[in-house]
Amino acid sequence: MRRYRLTVEYDGTPFVGWQKQSNGMSVQESIERAIFQFCGEVTNVFSAGRTDAGVHARQMTAHFDIEKDTTADVVRDALNHYLRPKPVAVLSAQQVTNDFHARFSAKARHYEYLYCDRRAPLALDAGRAWRISGALDHVAMHEAAQALIGQHDFTTFRAAGCQAKSPIKTLDRIAVRRVDDTLISLNVSATSFLHHQVRSIAGSLFAVGIGKWHKNKIADILAHKDRSACGQVAPPYGLYFLYADY
Amino acid sequence: MRRYRLTVEYDGTPFVGWQKQSNGMSVQESIERAIFQFCGEVTNVFSAGRTDAGVHARQMTAHFDIEKDTTADVVRDALNHYLRPKPVAVLSAQQVTNDFHARFSAKARHYEYLYCDRRAPLALDAGRAWRISGALDHVAMHEAAQALIGQHDFTTFRAAGCQAKSPIKTLDRIAVRRVDDTLISLNVSATSFLHHQVRSIAGSLFAVGIGKWHKNKIADILAHKDRSACGQVAPPYGLYFLYADY
Repeated sequence: MRRYRLTVEYDGTPFVGWQKQSNGMSVQESIERAIFQFCGEVTNVFSAGRTDAGVHARQMTAHFDIEKDTTADVVRDALNHYLRPKPVAVLSAQQVTNDFHARFSAKARHYEYLYCDRRAPLALDAGRAWRISGALDHVAMHEAAQALIGQHDFTTFRAAGCQAKSPIKTLDRIAVRRVDDTLISLNVSATSFLHHQVRSIAGSLFAVGIGKWHKNKIADILAHKDRSACGQVAPPYGLYFLYADY
Repeated sequence: MRRYRLTVEYDGTPFVGWQKQSNGMSVQESIERAIFQFCGEVTNVFSAGRTDAGVHARQMTAHFDIEKDTTADVVRDALNHYLRPKPVAVLSAQQVTNDFHARFSAKARHYEYLYCDRRAPLALDAGRAWRISGALDHVAMHEAAQALIGQHDFTTFRAAGCQAKSPIKTLDRIAVRRVDDTLISLNVSATSFLHHQVRSIAGSLFAVGIGKWHKNKIADILAHKDRSACGQVAPPYGLYFLYADY
């Protein structure tokens, strides 16, 4: 058996999410099918993050094992060939030892959430950012977000169906900045995340950004440890898995 | 009659181009239909640039006349409502005097061409840049491009069907820069352009970028004044009309 590590970019729009599901095509199943077409082997593909339906990835790390004796470059090109025309691209592939695991070896995960604050619908960036009709106060959002840094019980920002054993997570970094006149970026880093955690944070910071919530409210709802205190869950198409550290 | 000036963003992918044509939906016809749905008036919409099929626009200037007594903000919101779900968005609208003409008043036009030099297909930026498998030498491209600045007979870079009276144009600025590891941007500014001029330049600079042509060849083919000396016409989906100056 040989283990290959992949770096994968995908547009989440047409997928039911990373993980294989009976209700539609997933990124995972797309890659597993391409592997089967390439070498006739059935294998499981593991990833650093199991993104929700509609969530994108810039550099998702994944791995899988196959018997076939080949090179990493051939794996990359063959998978890209068989993945076409799906919006999934293998940016790079490398052979790794069996102690590398895309999920369990990851030391940190980095996500970005994009808001676009403009009145007009998005034409060129449709499905790539969450459009907000009014202006967002990115400074208030950034200040509010700092209350989330460190180790906390994130029950407030956790999906009802989250399967993590504990709601306690450590957020290493959270920052909101204005990229240009109409684009705002939220960056979040942690070893791992709860289900819907980033989108729950993004939706709560949205409430601060539009002035509906005072910036102190993020600390308040965190302290509540109550899902019902959370803001809306931000739509998936603004969220990007950036990369994982190993 | 009231004249309205629009700033319009569009994704060129589904359109036969800016201009109305019998073989499919154009951006112009999409906007004219939205105006008709809004106020029941049949009007012509004029633009700063008549982009080809597949070419995008970030801030295209357009104008039209209608009888209806309303405000520019209502025009903007109504057109966006009726344009949905087409990827055309009116970023802003303002009432202007009758001496303003989107095409004839424009003093300069600015285009950008995006290349992506990476081996993997584009997943997130599919239809937004021209992907080149090998590395592009953006420094050589920039140096080669400087030969095009100033007033020249651009016959080499002109489509066979170009309807301009003269092939003589003045290029005010041309610059190639690397935006990041895999993205290269070509920026071109002129009062006006010949048909296919920017894409012909982009395709010829591509030949320099991959090392097929020496950087001096751009000056040579310009001097030839011969269409057959031109490189390939770069694909439309990498091209963006940025904005016009008035």
